[in-house]
Amino acid sequence: MGRVAIISVDGHVKAPREGYRDYIDPKWRGAFDEWLQSFEGMPDGFVRTELGEDAQWDPNRRVADLERQGVMAEVLFGNGAPFAAGRVDFAPDPEQTRQANMAFNRWVIDFCSEAPGRLHGQALVSFDDVDQAVRDVHWAKEQGLVGILMPPLYPGSKFFFDPALDPIWAACVEHDMVLHTHSGAGPTDISFGPGTMAIYASEAGWWAARPMHVLILGGVFERFPALHYCVAENGAWWVPDLRERMDAKWIGDHNTRKFGTEVFRGGLSMKPGDYIDRNCWLGASTMHQTEVDRRHGIGIDNLMWGNDFPHPEGTWPHTREWLRMRFHDVPVDETRKILGLNAVDCYGFDADALAPLVERIGPTIDDIHGGALEPTVETV
Amino acid sequence: MGRVAIISVDGHVKAPREGYRDYIDPKWRGAFDEWLQSFEGMPDGFVRTELGEDAQWDPNRRVADLERQGVMAEVLFGNGAPFAAGRVDFAPDPEQTRQANMAFNRWVIDFCSEAPGRLHGQALVSFDDVDQAVRDVHWAKEQGLVGILMPPLYPGSKFFFDPALDPIWAACVEHDMVLHTHSGAGPTDISFGPGTMAIYASEAGWWAARPMHVLILGGVFERFPALHYCVAENGAWWVPDLRERMDAKWIGDHNTRKFGTEVFRGGLSMKPGDYIDRNCWLGASTMHQTEVDRRHGIGIDNLMWGNDFPHPEGTWPHTREWLRMRFHDVPVDETRKILGLNAVDCYGFDADALAPLVERIGPTIDDIHGGALEPTVETV
Repeated sequence: MGRVAIISVDGHVKAPREGYRDYIDPKWRGAFDEWLQSFEGMPDGFVRTELGEDAQWDPNRRVADLERQGVMAEVLFGNGAPFAAGRVDFAPDPEQTRQANMAFNRWVIDFCSEAPGRLHGQALVSFDDVDQAVRDVHWAKEQGLVGILMPPLYPGSKFFFDPALDPIWAACVEHDMVLHTHSGAGPTDISFGPGTMAIYASEAGWWAARPMHVLILGGVFERFPALHYCVAENGAWWVPDLRERMDAKWIGDHNTRKFGTEVFRGGLSMKPGDYIDRNCWLGASTMHQTEVDRRHGIGIDNLMWGNDFPHPEGTWPHTREWLRMRFHDVPVDETRKILGLNAVDCYGFDADALAPLVERIGPTIDDIHGGALEPTVETV
Repeated sequence: MGRVAIISVDGHVKAPREGYRDYIDPKWRGAFDEWLQSFEGMPDGFVRTELGEDAQWDPNRRVADLERQGVMAEVLFGNGAPFAAGRVDFAPDPEQTRQANMAFNRWVIDFCSEAPGRLHGQALVSFDDVDQAVRDVHWAKEQGLVGILMPPLYPGSKFFFDPALDPIWAACVEHDMVLHTHSGAGPTDISFGPGTMAIYASEAGWWAARPMHVLILGGVFERFPALHYCVAENGAWWVPDLRERMDAKWIGDHNTRKFGTEVFRGGLSMKPGDYIDRNCWLGASTMHQTEVDRRHGIGIDNLMWGNDFPHPEGTWPHTREWLRMRFHDVPVDETRKILGLNAVDCYGFDADALAPLVERIGPTIDDIHGGALEPTVETV
C-alpha cells in the first residue's frame, strides 16, 4: 500500500507533579510532600502552551494528537520525575533516586497501558547498585516497558565500559530492553558565568553522545553482540565523522600508527563503525536537513525519526509538513526505514498489529514526496 | 613569482632530558637530577628513527631538514619539559610546574635564536598565579617568543571565560602573543580498561578544541577583540559543524527558541562564527582531505598548514608530495593563504624577510598543482 508507518522514537510524558503521590513508596511520601511544596506556584516545565500540559499525562489526549500528526506509535521518555531524578545531570542520594525512578516507572506503566502496542515507555534505572539495577530491568520488562534510560556519567560513577556493569547489559539482552542515553547531559566541570548556558547548549550533544563511543571502544558490544543502544533526541550529524575517525585508528592510520594498532583495538574484533551498524540506533528528533543529507554515513538502518512531542522544539503541529520538507527527495525504501521500520527493528514494535492504523492515519508516499513545500513552517 | 611560502605552524622541539639542567633554576637542580634519574635507560619519546632525535634539539640539523621539505619557517611547541610539565593532562605542584616551564622557555629561546625570523617558539605559561602569568607573558615577548601554550582545563582550574584570567588575555593582546591550545588534552574522568587508549584518542580532539567554544561563548573575544587564538595540531574538520550549531543558537533556531536568545547570547554582539573568523586560527597538521574539502566552512583565512615535524605522524620526508596531494586542485590564492599567508597574519612573520628564502627553496605552483600524484606516499 502507499501509506507510510510513522513511529516517533522521542516522546515525552510525565505526571503532573502531585500525580506521582500515589506512585511513590509510602515510606517516601513525607519527603515527597516536602519536595512538592518547594514548587508552590511554579510552572511545571516547558510545554506547548496551546496543548496545555495535558498531552504529557492524558493518554487519550495524547493518542488523538498523535493521530492528527499521522504518528502510529511512540517511544516515551520521562519529562520529569520526583526529586528531579531522571535529570541526566543530577545525582542525588542513591536510594532517593531509585525511589523517584520507581515512582515514575509505575506511573508510566499505567500511562502506556492505555494504548497497548502504541506507547512504549522507558524505565529510569540507576546504576548505583548493580544487583538492584538487574532486578529493576527484569521488573520493568515484566511490566511491559521496552528499554531503560541510563543515568549520566558523573564524577565518581562507573565508566560505561566497566565490566562491573556487565550484569545490567546481560539483563537488557535477555529481555530485549533497549539501552538509551538522551540529550540533556552536560559538563560537570563547568563554572558559572554569562556564557554558561551557551557553552552548555553547544556541548550537550557531545556529552549525550559520549556513551556511544565509550560503549563501542570499551568492548561492551563485543561482549554483548545483541545489545541495542539508542542515542535519543541528540541528532546524528556527528555520526559519520565519529565513525570515520574511530575506524581510522582501528585500521592504524598515518596519525596513530606510531602506537601500533593493538592499543587502539583493545580486543575489538570488528571496526568500531561495524558496532554502530549492528548495535546502535540514532533518534534524530525534529531532524535537520544535515541528518537527511548524511543518512548514508549515519546508517540507513540506524537513523530514526522523532517528534519530540509535546516539546516546543518538536514538530507539532506541523509534523506532516516536516515529513515532506525533509523526505521529499529521499528514496521510498529509505524513507520507510527512517520514519518507522528502523524503530520496529530496534524496539520490537508489532508491525502487523499496527498495520490497520497505518492504513487509517498514515501519510501516503505522495503526501511525503509530492508537491512543493508551502513556506508556512518555521524551520530555522 | 611562482613560488609558494610554506610555513608550518606545528613543529616540535625539546632538549634532550639532561639538556634542561643548565636552564633550570639552581634551587630546583636537586629535584631535577632526581627526576632525570627516574628515566635511566628509557628512550626519550617518539621521533622518526631515521632522524635520530637531533632535529628536536639541533637547530642546524632542523633548518637543513626544513629546507629540504620546502618549509621556510615554523611555529614551535615543546615536545617535553622537565617534570613532565607542558603535558596538557598533567597538573603537578604549581611552583614546580612554573619552574619546569621556565626551564623549557629559556631553552627554546636559545634554540630559536639560531635561526631568527624562522623558528618561532611558544612559551609554556601556567595560570595558577595570574599576576605571575602576566609577568611571564611580558618576559616571553621580550625574549622573542611569539605566543603561549595554555595549560589544559583540569578539575578545579579556572574555566577559560573566568574574568579572573582577563589580565593574561590583556597581556597577550598588548604584546601580540598568540594564545594556543594543542592536541593532547584528554578526559580527566576516565577510568582504566582495555578501551581506554581508543577512547582517549577518539575524544582528544574534542578536549583540545573545547577551549575555542568556551573562549568564544564565554565572551573572551568580545572583551579582547584583538586576541589571536590558535588550536594547534587538532585538525579542523569539526569547525563547520561547531560554527553552524553555535550560530543557530545565537540566532534563536527552532530547537532552542523556547529559552529565548538572550540566554544563549550572553552579551555577544556578533554571531559566534564571526569570532572564529576574527580571532581563531586552526593549525591542521598533516591535513586530511576532509579539512581541504571543508576549507570554506572552516575559513579560508583561518586554516593553516602544519608539518608536525619531526613526529612520525608528520609529513617528513614526503612534505612536497603531501602538498601536491592535498592542494593539487585548490585555487592558487587559497593555497597560498592556507600554506603560509594565514600564518603570517596570525603570528606576524616578516614576509619581506622571508621572501628570498621562498625564492630559494619554496615549491612552485606547478610543483603543487602539476602532474599526477605518484602513489608512493602513505596517506591512510
